[in-house]
Amino acid sequence: MRYDFGSDNTAGMAPAALKALVEANTGPMRAYGADDVTARAADAIRARLDADAEVRFVFSGTAANAIALSMLAQPHEAVLAHHAAHVCTDETGAPGFFGQGLGLIGLPGFSGKIDPVVLRDALSEPVVGHRQPPGALSLTQSTEYGTVYTRDELAALIDPVKAAGLKVHMDGARLANAAAAGFDLKDIARLGVDILVFGGAKAGANCAEAMVILNKPLARRIDNRLKQAGQIASKTRFLSAPILGLLEDGEWEGGAAHANAMALRLADGLESRTPIVLAHPVQANAVFVRMDQAAHERLNAMGWACYRFDDGSVRFVCSWATSSDAVDSLVEAIASLG
Amino acid sequence: MRYDFGSDNTAGMAPAALKALVEANTGPMRAYGADDVTARAADAIRARLDADAEVRFVFSGTAANAIALSMLAQPHEAVLAHHAAHVCTDETGAPGFFGQGLGLIGLPGFSGKIDPVVLRDALSEPVVGHRQPPGALSLTQSTEYGTVYTRDELAALIDPVKAAGLKVHMDGARLANAAAAGFDLKDIARLGVDILVFGGAKAGANCAEAMVILNKPLARRIDNRLKQAGQIASKTRFLSAPILGLLEDGEWEGGAAHANAMALRLADGLESRTPIVLAHPVQANAVFVRMDQAAHERLNAMGWACYRFDDGSVRFVCSWATSSDAVDSLVEAIASLG
Amino acid sequence: MRYDFGSDNTAGMAPAALKALVEANTGPMRAYGADDVTARAADAIRARLDADAEVRFVFSGTAANAIALSMLAQPHEAVLAHHAAHVCTDETGAPGFFGQGLGLIGLPGFSGKIDPVVLRDALSEPVVGHRQPPGALSLTQSTEYGTVYTRDELAALIDPVKAAGLKVHMDGARLANAAAAGFDLKDIARLGVDILVFGGAKAGANCAEAMVILNKPLARRIDNRLKQAGQIASKTRFLSAPILGLLEDGEWEGGAAHANAMALRLADGLESRTPIVLAHPVQANAVFVRMDQAAHERLNAMGWACYRFDDGSVRFVCSWATSSDAVDSLVEAIASLG
Amino acid sequence: MRYDFGSDNTAGMAPAALKALVEANTGPMRAYGADDVTARAADAIRARLDADAEVRFVFSGTAANAIALSMLAQPHEAVLAHHAAHVCTDETGAPGFFGQGLGLIGLPGFSGKIDPVVLRDALSEPVVGHRQPPGALSLTQSTEYGTVYTRDELAALIDPVKAAGLKVHMDGARLANAAAAGFDLKDIARLGVDILVFGGAKAGANCAEAMVILNKPLARRIDNRLKQAGQIASKTRFLSAPILGLLEDGEWEGGAAHANAMALRLADGLESRTPIVLAHPVQANAVFVRMDQAAHERLNAMGWACYRFDDGSVRFVCSWATSSDAVDSLVEAIASLG
Repeated sequence: MRYDFGSDNTAGMAPAALKALVEANTGPMRAYGADDVTARAADAIRARLDADAEVRFVFSGTAANAIALSMLAQPHEAVLAHHAAHVCTDETGAPGFFGQGLGLIGLPGFSGKIDPVVLRDALSEPVVGHRQPPGALSLTQSTEYGTVYTRDELAALIDPVKAAGLKVHMDGARLANAAAAGFDLKDIARLGVDILVFGGAKAGANCAEAMVILNKPLARRIDNRLKQAGQIASKTRFLSAPILGLLEDGEWEGGAAHANAMALRLADGLESRTPIVLAHPVQANAVFVRMDQAAHERLNAMGWACYRFDDGSVRFVCSWATSSDAVDSLVEAIASLG
Repeated sequence: MRYDFGSDNTAGMAPAALKALVEANTGPMRAYGADDVTARAADAIRARLDADAEVRFVFSGTAANAIALSMLAQPHEAVLAHHAAHVCTDETGAPGFFGQGLGLIGLPGFSGKIDPVVLRDALSEPVVGHRQPPGALSLTQSTEYGTVYTRDELAALIDPVKAAGLKVHMDGARLANAAAAGFDLKDIARLGVDILVFGGAKAGANCAEAMVILNKPLARRIDNRLKQAGQIASKTRFLSAPILGLLEDGEWEGGAAHANAMALRLADGLESRTPIVLAHPVQANAVFVRMDQAAHERLNAMGWACYRFDDGSVRFVCSWATSSDAVDSLVEAIASLG
Repeated sequence: MRYDFGSDNTAGMAPAALKALVEANTGPMRAYGADDVTARAADAIRARLDADAEVRFVFSGTAANAIALSMLAQPHEAVLAHHAAHVCTDETGAPGFFGQGLGLIGLPGFSGKIDPVVLRDALSEPVVGHRQPPGALSLTQSTEYGTVYTRDELAALIDPVKAAGLKVHMDGARLANAAAAGFDLKDIARLGVDILVFGGAKAGANCAEAMVILNKPLARRIDNRLKQAGQIASKTRFLSAPILGLLEDGEWEGGAAHANAMALRLADGLESRTPIVLAHPVQANAVFVRMDQAAHERLNAMGWACYRFDDGSVRFVCSWATSSDAVDSLVEAIASLG
Repeated sequence: MRYDFGSDNTAGMAPAALKALVEANTGPMRAYGADDVTARAADAIRARLDADAEVRFVFSGTAANAIALSMLAQPHEAVLAHHAAHVCTDETGAPGFFGQGLGLIGLPGFSGKIDPVVLRDALSEPVVGHRQPPGALSLTQSTEYGTVYTRDELAALIDPVKAAGLKVHMDGARLANAAAAGFDLKDIARLGVDILVFGGAKAGANCAEAMVILNKPLARRIDNRLKQAGQIASKTRFLSAPILGLLEDGEWEGGAAHANAMALRLADGLESRTPIVLAHPVQANAVFVRMDQAAHERLNAMGWACYRFDDGSVRFVCSWATSSDAVDSLVEAIASLG
């Protein structure tokens, strides 16, 4: 079975990430994040964002998102998110677990982007005691359906939320792909995001994400919070070094740019060589297509792993490691389905 | 500052661990633990323990312990543990967080080993509605004070607990050191431990521990549980490969044997060269000494990081990476304190 | 404003409930449920159900439901329920709070009854690690839309759930109304319900519900569980006595029969005197009608409190205290809307 | 068995409380606390305290305390409390359950009062990531050992806590007894208590306590919070009316003054008629005595329920309902033990 296109986490570590990890494997260093490699990685992220922030390196995007949401909304509140967002559909209820019952309110919108009109409606609902009112907004950049919010689209969602006194989370598991697609990372702080999860794993690190707490008072006693939640690494250098390597080397964006290019190549190949219809615009590293059950099964049987999503489409994801040969082979395979 | 003896997690990855990680960085693999490297690592652990078990690789010992305890006792129950156990003193209340208020009952006992008489007293307390009655026992092997339970000592604790219908957890963050000191790993299953946390990080891995669920019905839907708790790695191979490397190569025990030998060298050096008194028997990789505040501060000022524990003693820990030169230098430094 | 029809909890205590409460106000009694009044009330419930069970009296239906669900499913699982069930829509996420992130899966079905075909589909979904699989089924009898499940309808839902190894909860906030409508209470145990919440408040008690744990092993350490969850009354007699009074006197069913009769009178009046269309069959104590926003507002302005539900209909609820005069006045008022 | 002195919650409802409850049982009222009786009861409490505050009526002191603590400290923090406080010893870990792992740090001090020197030491401990640092202080007035803090004693505890930026909770389950002993209720707000639990049950109500949120911004969305936590009464009037009755009538303090007087009578009788030694000063409604196991058992066998506490003493508690005859009979019984 070929897992190349099953997800962008089926790839290994990108060269710059692995190199940095190996180089960090020197003598004894202070544990629990107090080492120099980790300090440099935090600086590199702050520089990318052009913002002051508390930065912590954690193991898991699921945990990073869920802990962030638990810092932005109370258990008796809910988080507004696109109904197809990872926090709603793919994290086994982690926001409710870390958030002690914190609710999720799934909002619609085309291709993974929240509809601003629906958002405003949700914000204007009266607060009643027997429901969980919204306490925060969660945005995904790039989105679960491979699209990229523009600055103005984000502002149209964040501004009314901020005006209502709520907080904002951004799931940046694929932030590198958004950046490579032209999204300016400096807008994140400028737009008022309170906590960003800065993606490492899908950008070529091992399993490492950075929690970037832009709203710094929220970071009070963050080390206690993360330790209790099982997200403090004793040997933090092995989380921070790969991300540092990717950032210093430019491979964080470079690998994402490659992934995005491979997705476009795939989309172009499918459109020119097959009758396949794209289900969403291809703006980052994923290609969603309309494909019936029989074709999907035959493709799987030919050895290509790929998955059907809640909107009925089938997804192919590219990564820093995707080769153009692999893309062409996949196009060939799909073309052969007739 | 020298962190060599501050903890055994200040060391990097042992050669066999790093080598295996690098070798696992090949092409695409299935994510979320469904890869072959992970399957082989689980097999290797089962072989070491001579037991059938569900094995999962997680990021953090704190999380592994806390999740295990939440599987063995209910929120309205408590876990019996040595009052100096890591779960009681060093995990920021993680058992209560993952266990939704799960309590801890700290028991006394010399040098980190629970006193079996006190344990029996605790088990015979009547259950009253306004207290959290014991639901499980947590054991640490090797202990927080660097001692190693014998098989008989463990049986004297586990047997009455099992007879009372309670469950048993073993925190094996330093299980390799216990094994290297002669503890037979096959006794773990034979004695009736329900869930073992099989230590990786302190044995030379990056940040990786294995949850070994010997009581297999408890593993029902374990992947959902771990995903929700933020302890499923997308790229699991980078957790499992280092542990596999250590086990295949014998470095898991070999490094621990070295660490234990260095601790003995340190203890011998201190006893022969200085007036320092040992606070606990040296049976694994840690040396605890009586040292007054002034001496401790001078030693820190000389560049040697070390920490005072709740029993008033100061701890030095050796690892797979500790050199005999470093040990001798430390002895020299302590001798110079006069 | 008249709250008669706003809900069935706007009424006070029924005469038999108040009388029993006053009579229980004698001298000192053991606290925390160990008194004789409470024992008799538990016996009375077991007799009504013709079943052995652990019975505990708690303050709140929300808590009773949520605690019951937390006993039937794990945090990484979900509970199947009608999407309009009280646990889904009116309890501010209490199942997730008491259940530490426990999920809810809302299922469709006409007039508050779960569609058995959809339920079977939900049960046959493969378990995947990144979603919360079903762990239990929650049923509401009588339903949120004023209908009453027949024995066969319940069996068609419970049987496949039991066959799949899942547990069953019944929210009986309005169980008295179902009983008065002909539902045989003895079927609850026979059908395999694991935990029943036996309604007190809406049947004429103050604020008191009984948790009836038919699956007795689940009741292990239930007093510890309820104490921790803030649902043990020190002066339990003031919860149990009113329910005992209602049961001994027959007013539990008698009041509900009156309420059901008043709902029918209201439905008949509306159908004969107004153009109003009923939204759901009237089988218990509630009448749901199609009413546009303007008419609803005028009715409110005339002093009649009533609320719009998620299906767009407007609800009127009758209780043991509803008078036929009040019903006739309401019909008159609605007729006057034209 | 006579339960008169076993606790102050073995008594029923005081006359003024029952009268008010019966009178509140009129026609339909708005549910969930929006009724007039509840508004008047909240006003009466604010008047007693001479303070603005959000007031909510809940069922259980355990829940009220635990929810209050969860509003004052985070899960990764701990609450400082006397080690014998009800929250530490008698609530089955409810603070950890409602507070999602919130820790408790038990502090020593004579007769239930926290030692201010120890408190200052606790506040000056450095915050380290692997422990739960203090986030709030919990005080009990009157204390678990029947003593009453003076204003100055409270200030000596509250002032340094406030200076450190932490919050303050007061468990007033027996606040009426403190008030009857001369404690000025107006000092509660003046001293800076953030949330007070204003006791009802032990003062003669059924099961009802008031959460008094003096730090009003903390009350944001309090109705959602309480609903989710199962502490919103649909028929709130049956919680608020009894407290209103006690307050309007003066029986809240009057009953407590009687209880305190009976405790003094008991203490005097024991001191003059028996060799019994008091274990703590008698300042409120409880008498703690040194009594060996044999005597305790004989007293129980004579039909007098009483309980041994963690400090080894045996407790007798008086209430609004305790008669002087009962006190004299108990003295007689104890005298007969020889």
